[in-house]
Amino acid sequence: MKRNALKLNIKKIFIKHKMSDKHAEICSDYLIKSELVGASSHGLARLKMYCDRMKKKLINPKPKIRIKKISGSISYIDANNSIGFVAADIGIKKAIEHAKKTGIGLVGIKRSNHYGLSSFYAEQAVKKELMVWCFTNAPPALAPYGAKKALFGTNPICFGTPTGNKTPFILDMSTSIINRGKIRRAQKLGLKIPYGVAMDKSGKITTNANKAILGTQLPIADFKGSGLAWMIDILSGVLTGSSHGGKTRDPFDDFSGPQNMGHLFLTINPKIFIGKNYLKEIKKNIKLVKKLPKAKGFKDILYPGERKNLIYKKNIKRDIAVPSKILQEMKELNAI
Amino acid sequence: MKRNALKLNIKKIFIKHKMSDKHAEICSDYLIKSELVGASSHGLARLKMYCDRMKKKLINPKPKIRIKKISGSISYIDANNSIGFVAADIGIKKAIEHAKKTGIGLVGIKRSNHYGLSSFYAEQAVKKELMVWCFTNAPPALAPYGAKKALFGTNPICFGTPTGNKTPFILDMSTSIINRGKIRRAQKLGLKIPYGVAMDKSGKITTNANKAILGTQLPIADFKGSGLAWMIDILSGVLTGSSHGGKTRDPFDDFSGPQNMGHLFLTINPKIFIGKNYLKEIKKNIKLVKKLPKAKGFKDILYPGERKNLIYKKNIKRDIAVPSKILQEMKELNAI
Repeated sequence: MKRNALKLNIKKIFIKHKMSDKHAEICSDYLIKSELVGASSHGLARLKMYCDRMKKKLINPKPKIRIKKISGSISYIDANNSIGFVAADIGIKKAIEHAKKTGIGLVGIKRSNHYGLSSFYAEQAVKKELMVWCFTNAPPALAPYGAKKALFGTNPICFGTPTGNKTPFILDMSTSIINRGKIRRAQKLGLKIPYGVAMDKSGKITTNANKAILGTQLPIADFKGSGLAWMIDILSGVLTGSSHGGKTRDPFDDFSGPQNMGHLFLTINPKIFIGKNYLKEIKKNIKLVKKLPKAKGFKDILYPGERKNLIYKKNIKRDIAVPSKILQEMKELNAI
Repeated sequence: MKRNALKLNIKKIFIKHKMSDKHAEICSDYLIKSELVGASSHGLARLKMYCDRMKKKLINPKPKIRIKKISGSISYIDANNSIGFVAADIGIKKAIEHAKKTGIGLVGIKRSNHYGLSSFYAEQAVKKELMVWCFTNAPPALAPYGAKKALFGTNPICFGTPTGNKTPFILDMSTSIINRGKIRRAQKLGLKIPYGVAMDKSGKITTNANKAILGTQLPIADFKGSGLAWMIDILSGVLTGSSHGGKTRDPFDDFSGPQNMGHLFLTINPKIFIGKNYLKEIKKNIKLVKKLPKAKGFKDILYPGERKNLIYKKNIKRDIAVPSKILQEMKELNAI
């Protein structure tokens, strides 16, 4: 489907679910963007879920988002159970404002919901020539090191910096060994999953995708990944006064209440110490890495974000393929 | 050897190498601390190296450390080629001061040297009831994902937070799969190293410790660990105006110039959003994780920093065992 027509459709659906034109614009934009960077798991496939949660009053389509200014560098946002896209969009813009004025910005967001890809927000800060971290928690999927039950989300770390060229450096990584989407795909296609990435319900390593979905995923690098996921649970959940410790509801499966998710954005002006030389030095840094002798099977060394940018550039020229199941969902959502 | 006597000895050695009493006190304290937490690789084993570098004027024993205040939250420190302990000690105290006053603190340090364990500095901030990140770069040891030559250091991520109890949460992890010390030990004892943690010079995975030392170590979780190591190179090296991109000299092997290392400390008052409830919530968070059903082979789930704290508590009651080789080194250093 043509991108613009598709976006208009999605926007209409959100408006039918009582969203304002402005918020529907933000949300449809982010959903399309997910498709363009090849992250379909965060795109149209979630539209019905967001709408279902709005219908059941688990996401507030008309939130009164309150921003409390704590200092010239810090703000605290009560998202009033807004869809995550809208709360995070306001949040990152605030964090950008802070860093532009004072060199550093910190924005905590409480009472929010799933916000899509962290890189959406990181990119905005990087485009304004800032360094940025984005943290969010997520529903239980990961067993802490030493446990056999999931508690942490696949809690992503996202870090971005300007590079002095058009493609930003954006590291956006989950703390699980493989993405949940890969396990779901293996489940659908009847494939095995790699050894050592997930456990079944009883805590035994499994290569069976069905058992893995019912069990738990494993963090990267044992206690290191577990520690990172824990850190992110603290930063986005505990610090911001949001859900934490495994209490974040799964948006697809758990309709017993709102998610109460937390996000944390931290922005830094990278010119704060060495001025414009920052851009010169980061360019040099990337060049030094890229010209290293390549390992077997590698033609190029890419920095984080480059691959996603290549996918985006390819997809932006094409129509977006919408699976028939999702087209059907969209028809039904539009009919209410 | 009795701890106090040993510390006095080390202090004397530093003073003989032209350090001030105050700086020698700081350095001897950190070296002893490394031994107490079981990190001998960062303790007495490095004393001779620090002294050698001072003798060769590659570390300045009488640095004029300049602190430039950039805002109420940000300072920039020129360490004047100080030993890392002293520069970082001043830096973390500044970062604490900033966060206490404004809720957030950022301190960049340039022209420094190896500073021991990041957790030393994180602990100080946590004791003052702050959240903290410490970043430092390190000499090349790790191949970027896709390369067959080392460029990044084993660049540690260190994050700390108060827990509402006596043992702080301190995640202090290298971005390499195993520590370099483990490879050196395998080399000494003629043991094999695990498969998949290091490559030989030609870029082939090796289990031979000798070949691994000459080759490169691999990052945790492929491109994820490589991305994290890169992020830390940018934060501590590029941002602070220090060495980066594989230009940090190895303190043991490379006497062609100073290390020009960079450190970055970031502090946050965790009560900034939810007040004293932070301590209540973090306690709850830790409790929820700890009471999960345990995986096979685990009696307890420990949070980052707990294990090191247990070792410290055990060691603080004992004398410190000094290997004869190091005793000999100390005698020689004291004789100059």
